[in-house]
Amino acid sequence: MISEQDLSTAHERIAPFVHRTPILVCRSISEQVGAALLFKCENFQKIGAFKIRGAVNAVQQLTDDERARGVATHSSGNHAQALALAARQVGTHATIVMPRNSAAIKKEAVRGYGATIIDCEATFTDREATLQRVVDETGAVFVPPFNDWRVIAGQGTAAKELIEDEPGLDIILAPVGGGGLLSGTALAAHFLSPGTHVVGVEPEEADDAYRSLQSGEIQPLEKTDTIADGLRTSLGDKTFAVIREHVDEIITVSEPAIVDAMRLVWERMKIVIEPSAAVAVAGAIKAADRLKGQRVGVILSGGNVDLDQLPFGA
Amino acid sequence: MISEQDLSTAHERIAPFVHRTPILVCRSISEQVGAALLFKCENFQKIGAFKIRGAVNAVQQLTDDERARGVATHSSGNHAQALALAARQVGTHATIVMPRNSAAIKKEAVRGYGATIIDCEATFTDREATLQRVVDETGAVFVPPFNDWRVIAGQGTAAKELIEDEPGLDIILAPVGGGGLLSGTALAAHFLSPGTHVVGVEPEEADDAYRSLQSGEIQPLEKTDTIADGLRTSLGDKTFAVIREHVDEIITVSEPAIVDAMRLVWERMKIVIEPSAAVAVAGAIKAADRLKGQRVGVILSGGNVDLDQLPFGA
Repeated sequence: MISEQDLSTAHERIAPFVHRTPILVCRSISEQVGAALLFKCENFQKIGAFKIRGAVNAVQQLTDDERARGVATHSSGNHAQALALAARQVGTHATIVMPRNSAAIKKEAVRGYGATIIDCEATFTDREATLQRVVDETGAVFVPPFNDWRVIAGQGTAAKELIEDEPGLDIILAPVGGGGLLSGTALAAHFLSPGTHVVGVEPEEADDAYRSLQSGEIQPLEKTDTIADGLRTSLGDKTFAVIREHVDEIITVSEPAIVDAMRLVWERMKIVIEPSAAVAVAGAIKAADRLKGQRVGVILSGGNVDLDQLPFGA
Repeated sequence: MISEQDLSTAHERIAPFVHRTPILVCRSISEQVGAALLFKCENFQKIGAFKIRGAVNAVQQLTDDERARGVATHSSGNHAQALALAARQVGTHATIVMPRNSAAIKKEAVRGYGATIIDCEATFTDREATLQRVVDETGAVFVPPFNDWRVIAGQGTAAKELIEDEPGLDIILAPVGGGGLLSGTALAAHFLSPGTHVVGVEPEEADDAYRSLQSGEIQPLEKTDTIADGLRTSLGDKTFAVIREHVDEIITVSEPAIVDAMRLVWERMKIVIEPSAAVAVAGAIKAADRLKGQRVGVILSGGNVDLDQLPFGA
């Protein structure tokens, strides 16, 4: 697992390569919820999302031999960009397996960081098979998107900063997809602020983490049509183990609630957040009754949206 | 006119009632322009735009008698919200004449600050006539949107903060509509940083300030169909006098360039700016050749957009 020392070392390791993102407040949204909301703005992070933290923490620990072989992963989203940039930072090569139907803008960003893209079909099976072929052929080191202790420790540094900057939080809300951010957040709170509750928020349309906690076993994700594209993933054994032990609850939110929360943040805070980040805000709004008068950290996980495909409009 | 002392007094007067907004940087946009761009983020200002500065500076100077009579203006945009909030801050009443076709969300915001809305037709003539009737009937004090020394001094405090936080700027770019922000910016630079050039940026589709500077006389605005809805206004005699004396140049930018600049800021900086603010960014991009290696302040004037009417999409 991960110790307090691992988290602390991860933070020191990645600090030169990532932003310490600001924490913003918004009076009108706090008034609406009836709590003091403190938004950790990972949308302002490098590559536009917290994912760079875990990728850097993993890549910076490669041996010379591993660095010579390069890194690889499969991702249609933020982990692709994160690994591409993290690889460039240490002067190694990244190969990213991306579904053929990935947004052109995301492929461009990955290429912009100097990575090689290998197309695959948009199924999880073909993603994994294609990645395995890349690893077999090139000897590249697979850096998983979430189910990896180095990655989990890296993602936990966002909550570590939030806790350092805003001591004494009653609760921290984080979105949950594969569980890298949520498990890292839970460990950071466990080590550094044990009185702080950690709650995951998940789309109703992708409620596998909720069902997994209920049943005590990892439940597969059957549907993948939530607007929160970063959360269309099941938990892994490592993230599930942490979440089971250290996460107090998982709240689910509807698709309209996610869009409403996204609109609220854009309109009131004048910042761009992606649907997966809006999920945490929607959780705060849904749980308003229980949050009354509390100090609530909300991790805004990222800000990468396709402006040509927004969920607003008449 | 306005003295350095007036500007300084205005700043002290409004400080308790407005935000000192942050200055953000963005490496990729700076690299694209080849200059160090420093963005003064008035989109994070109260009511979402710099307009609150001028309104507060005017309303805070009302006499007891004037305050008892209330304030009034006509506006379809940010000045309406600004005056409504500034009036509430001193406990007086605001009456806002708004074109019948104003966005519902803007009317709601004005009502939310406790102001009374009087509908009028969407012509400048009817706006003025309706306002005059309100003033005649209620004795309310007219607070103009830009052509007023108190308002100009208030708007100049944004550039004053920018100059204080980032000394030694080579140039400051500000959008120009009625000229309140640009003339205030020019005066702030003149008093506090005389080596800093001030350049206005205007939509080609509303290039009245450009033509006014060329001809030496205020030119009317014939067309009002630019996407930069905050800039669909001619100069006033006071703003023109300042701009003539202290503004080095006015650059015009095309409608596609405005939309591209807006998209660039949303995508790269993850902040929401309105088209009028994007005009200044488009100006920096257009003038890139001349800005090479310079330190350039860019005033992002506001962030109030109708998310249901965005100019993006396939």
